[in-house]
Amino acid sequence: MSLLEGLATTRAIRRYTADPIPDEDLAEILWYAGRAPSGTNRQPFRFIVLRRGDDVARPARELLGRSFRASWVSKQADLGVRVGTGAATDGPKERMAASMQHYVDHLEETPVIVLVGLERYRGPSPYEGASVYPACQNLLLAARALGYGGALTGFHHAVEAELRELLGVPDGVALSACITLGVPAGRHGPLRRKPIADLTHDGRWGRRAEWLDDVDLNRT
Amino acid sequence: MSLLEGLATTRAIRRYTADPIPDEDLAEILWYAGRAPSGTNRQPFRFIVLRRGDDVARPARELLGRSFRASWVSKQADLGVRVGTGAATDGPKERMAASMQHYVDHLEETPVIVLVGLERYRGPSPYEGASVYPACQNLLLAARALGYGGALTGFHHAVEAELRELLGVPDGVALSACITLGVPAGRHGPLRRKPIADLTHDGRWGRRAEWLDDVDLNRT
Repeated sequence: MSLLEGLATTRAIRRYTADPIPDEDLAEILWYAGRAPSGTNRQPFRFIVLRRGDDVARPARELLGRSFRASWVSKQADLGVRVGTGAATDGPKERMAASMQHYVDHLEETPVIVLVGLERYRGPSPYEGASVYPACQNLLLAARALGYGGALTGFHHAVEAELRELLGVPDGVALSACITLGVPAGRHGPLRRKPIADLTHDGRWGRRAEWLDDVDLNRT
Repeated sequence: MSLLEGLATTRAIRRYTADPIPDEDLAEILWYAGRAPSGTNRQPFRFIVLRRGDDVARPARELLGRSFRASWVSKQADLGVRVGTGAATDGPKERMAASMQHYVDHLEETPVIVLVGLERYRGPSPYEGASVYPACQNLLLAARALGYGGALTGFHHAVEAELRELLGVPDGVALSACITLGVPAGRHGPLRRKPIADLTHDGRWGRRAEWLDDVDLNRT
């Protein structure tokens, strides 16, 4: 797969087959994640890997299952969506909600869960993510290249104190993301994204980039 | 270029030739950036594009030049490195410092500067970057695919208040990153990264992932 095709088509995958991710593939995915840039090349990202079938990882995986389900209950309430039934009358929101419900109900079966930590060298900041989320994106792109799919969530935050104690995560390490990985199951819709011209400002805020007007027409 | 090769080899590029980035290439780079994931697919990332030769962008580019140079002065003091002279006796730190000095001294000549904004829908958070830095990484990877190189910095923060006023950036938009882009000039060294086994914890913090031990040997 080409680099551009990977960037264009990698989307969140939340339904997985029962197939495992062999350790050698997981190792490769992590290796590519670690190639990401970070401030002053400090490489403060840390990967806590919770593999299905690893007895050491099991309690944390079960705790995360409870956390994901609780997080989805409150998120669903925020969004005000009902879970679809699979009927033809389901709209995009109901289908998304059904997919999310399936995701959290089967969290413990996920082949691999990666908690991505950030070893802080100064206090928490809205900009610290510049040194950890590029690695998360590399991880998801590498997974795609090897035939896997995944999703990045913050659904671990609901149990973060208990999770840190269980895993022995030091105080100075932020748990920035929780990524699930597996072999994609079933059909996945295309990426839905806004026209890039709507997200771009040319020279100053609010000035439309005329030179962008045709770019979305060239691809789907 | 393959997706995996792109992930393995994309590094920060801070020396550019005088060549411009044609608008059609820039449009394509931004389009791929916009394919990145974000929380609940809200796509809160915004791209403020400051192109060389655009009179509207010039005051902000000049302000950023001053900001980059001031930021480098204080960073250099923090790091305690001297700028190398290009002599054979220069170590990696001196070479890095020489490269940074050149970078900030020539900021106004950079073909394209992209300020990446995040339209906040709640208060600032250390985790908000999950919805903006994947787009930054996609942008840098897409640039690489098209033959360009770039670097992500926070060197705009030193003048942020003045910059916001100049560009008319609304209060609810964080300026999460400042990315420079151009055609790579000269030779660039390889990526320097820690062994991935040193960054990985298996099942709980501090447990070494034995299955990772060979992965670094396979690549350079």
